[in-house]
Amino acid sequence: MTNAQQSTRTATVTKPSDREIHIERVFDAPRDRVFALFTDPELIPQWWGPRSTTAEVVQMDVRTGGDYRFVMHNDDGSQTSFRGTYREVTAPERIVQTFEWDGMPGYVSVETAEFEDLGDRTKVTTTTIFHTTEERDGMLGSGMESGMNETYQRLDELLERLAG
Amino acid sequence: MTNAQQSTRTATVTKPSDREIHIERVFDAPRDRVFALFTDPELIPQWWGPRSTTAEVVQMDVRTGGDYRFVMHNDDGSQTSFRGTYREVTAPERIVQTFEWDGMPGYVSVETAEFEDLGDRTKVTTTTIFHTTEERDGMLGSGMESGMNETYQRLDELLERLAG
Repeated sequence: MTNAQQSTRTATVTKPSDREIHIERVFDAPRDRVFALFTDPELIPQWWGPRSTTAEVVQMDVRTGGDYRFVMHNDDGSQTSFRGTYREVTAPERIVQTFEWDGMPGYVSVETAEFEDLGDRTKVTTTTIFHTTEERDGMLGSGMESGMNETYQRLDELLERLAG
Repeated sequence: MTNAQQSTRTATVTKPSDREIHIERVFDAPRDRVFALFTDPELIPQWWGPRSTTAEVVQMDVRTGGDYRFVMHNDDGSQTSFRGTYREVTAPERIVQTFEWDGMPGYVSVETAEFEDLGDRTKVTTTTIFHTTEERDGMLGSGMESGMNETYQRLDELLERLAG
């Protein structure tokens, strides 16, 4: 792997305010392809979540006001779920959606994902806003960053398979 | 109506921070009775919403993690809906729930309602937090305050009927 390739495989996580998480990650694929993977219920199970889990798409109505619900099946047979509502879907540029984990019902954050066209590559910038600093820090302390990096590596691999 | 009675019929609305709305209102009924009306799906249609509307309880699972959904039928046949999730239900003291209107899907506020025992009367304090100041001000500009005052007057009347 060259240095140029290496640099695309690391997400940058920052805290731009006391209630936000900001993540930047570059993928080696054109924007239309990357956006399609974020919005295709058939392909979500192939990349969404850590490797030890399998995501099941129970609902995924990708339009303003549409809901989604993913059940994550763990290796040990246990499961947990995530749900939310699409606030905005502007292909292939921008998705705004709420996010709620069934382990903390009623704690709702809002994720804005922006897809920047870099030619053969795509920068995905995700900004998540929480109601309180405590909720933001709880998310950061939950292993989110390593889970996200694994998820994004799975996405790299899927993009490679689809390109091959 | 005496002055003492009059004073219980007005809600106090304040903005304790740039993302919150704080409302205080006193009801002429004991706390258990007031709390029961907030949590009884059979009685919600008798008081929830302005007089020109009829609330239909589609779902109301009053426990931590339970969801609610109310459809509000307007005089002209149109309808709109509200939904959310109970984050905490501690009878007869406290309810924390999310709130989302189908006209602005994905904009989720969190309401904390506290029920204070004043003997024969009950003070209900509701603090609502929004993700942004714009969302808070949008709610304040939507006619929320007059709608809420009408709703609370209907609750007064229901409490009177139930006591009679």
